[in-house]
Amino acid sequence: MKERKVVAEISVVPLGTGSASVSDYVAACIDVLEKSEHVTYQLTPMGTILEGPLDKILKITQEMHAVPFQRGATRVITTLKIDDRCDKVLTMKGKLEAVRSRRPEVKT
Amino acid sequence: MKERKVVAEISVVPLGTGSASVSDYVAACIDVLEKSEHVTYQLTPMGTILEGPLDKILKITQEMHAVPFQRGATRVITTLKIDDRCDKVLTMKGKLEAVRSRRPEVKT
Amino acid sequence: MKERKVVAEISVVPLGTGSASVSDYVAACIDVLEKSEHVTYQLTPMGTILEGPLDKILKITQEMHAVPFQRGATRVITTLKIDDRCDKVLTMKGKLEAVRSRRPEVKT
Amino acid sequence: MKERKVVAEISVVPLGTGSASVSDYVAACIDVLEKSEHVTYQLTPMGTILEGPLDKILKITQEMHAVPFQRGATRVITTLKIDDRCDKVLTMKGKLEAVRSRRPEVKT
Repeated sequence: MKERKVVAEISVVPLGTGSASVSDYVAACIDVLEKSEHVTYQLTPMGTILEGPLDKILKITQEMHAVPFQRGATRVITTLKIDDRCDKVLTMKGKLEAVRSRRPEVKT
Repeated sequence: MKERKVVAEISVVPLGTGSASVSDYVAACIDVLEKSEHVTYQLTPMGTILEGPLDKILKITQEMHAVPFQRGATRVITTLKIDDRCDKVLTMKGKLEAVRSRRPEVKT
Repeated sequence: MKERKVVAEISVVPLGTGSASVSDYVAACIDVLEKSEHVTYQLTPMGTILEGPLDKILKITQEMHAVPFQRGATRVITTLKIDDRCDKVLTMKGKLEAVRSRRPEVKT
Repeated sequence: MKERKVVAEISVVPLGTGSASVSDYVAACIDVLEKSEHVTYQLTPMGTILEGPLDKILKITQEMHAVPFQRGATRVITTLKIDDRCDKVLTMKGKLEAVRSRRPEVKT
C-alpha cells in the first residue's frame, strides 16, 4: 500500500534582519525542496505548496525552518497548514481541478 | 496618487456540512472575486491569493466569508494573511520574480 | 436584534526592523483594542483573540495593521482568523467551557 | 546544553463531520498533550499554545492531527505556527510579560 499524501502550505519568515526583503531566504529554502525525493512543491506569491507523505513534510518543515538561522536570522516564524483526507486521494492538481470543473473561468 | 496595494491570501472553510468536499463552496466564493473591479486573484491548491487595496480586500473577505452561510453552512472559519510593504510596490508577479531571479529553476 | 459576534485571532508582525523583538509593536497595537467599544480582547503568547461583530473586527484589523508602519516598519504581515457560527452564540468564554466540560483538567 | 524551546500554536479542525461543533475533537486532542513529558500547553479560544523543543512539537502535531481520523472524520485541516528565537530563551510566560511590562493594563 502506498503511503497517503497530504497537501500542505508552508511559509518561513525571518524577523529582525534589518531588511524588509525575504526573497534571499525563500530562495535558500528552495534548496531543501529541490533535494527532496518525496515531496513535490509549487511556489506561490504567499508561500510554498507541498504534496507528499505527512512525515516527510514535517521533516522538510524542520529543515526549511532552520535555513534563515543558518543565514544569520535570530528569529523565525514558520507557518504550516496541512490538508489531509482519508476518503480520496488528495493532490495539488486534483484540488484545483475540483474547482475548475465547477467554474472553468477560474484563474489559477 | 494611486492607493497602495497589498498581496493577501484568503481561505474560507465551512464546518459541519456533512461532506468533506469544499469545492462547491470555493467555486461560489469565486463569484465574489470575478465581480470585483479592484482586486485581482489567483486560485492555489490551498487558498486564493488576492492583490488590491487593503480596504477592498477586507470588504471582499467579508463577502466571501458570507457565501457558505448563504449555502446552508452553520459555521465558517476564514483565514486572511496580508502582506504589505510601504517601501516598494508589492504584486503577486513581483513577489514570484524576486525569488525566480535568484533561483531560475523554482517551480511556480 | 443584536448583531452576531464572531471570535477571531489576529497577529501583526513587522519585518525588517533590525530587531527580533516585536513586543513594542504589540504594546502599541493594544491601544487600538483598549479604545474599542465594540470588541473585547485577550492577549495570548501567539496573538490576540478578539470577540465582536465581524465588521468591527475588520475595521480594527485595518487599524492594528497600520500601527507598525506608523512606528517606522516598512513591511507588515498581518494574519486574521475568523470563527463564526450562526446556529449558536459564539464567545471566547463559551468556546473554552465547551472543552472544559469534557476535560476539566485542561490548562487554559 | 539544554535543547532550545520554541513557542507554537496548533489548531486541528475536522471537516465534513455533520456537526458544527468541534469541542469533542479538541478534548480528545488534549489527551496527546496531557501525556507529553516534553511539551507544556495552554488552551485558548482559538487554538492551543505549545512550548517545547521543535522536534517534540512536530511529533505532537502529527499525533494531534491523527486524532479526528481515529474518531471518524474523513478530512482534517491542521495549522501550526512556530515562533523560534536563537538570541534569547522563548517561553509562553516571557512573551506575555514582554508586552505587560510595556502595557500593564493588557488583558491576558
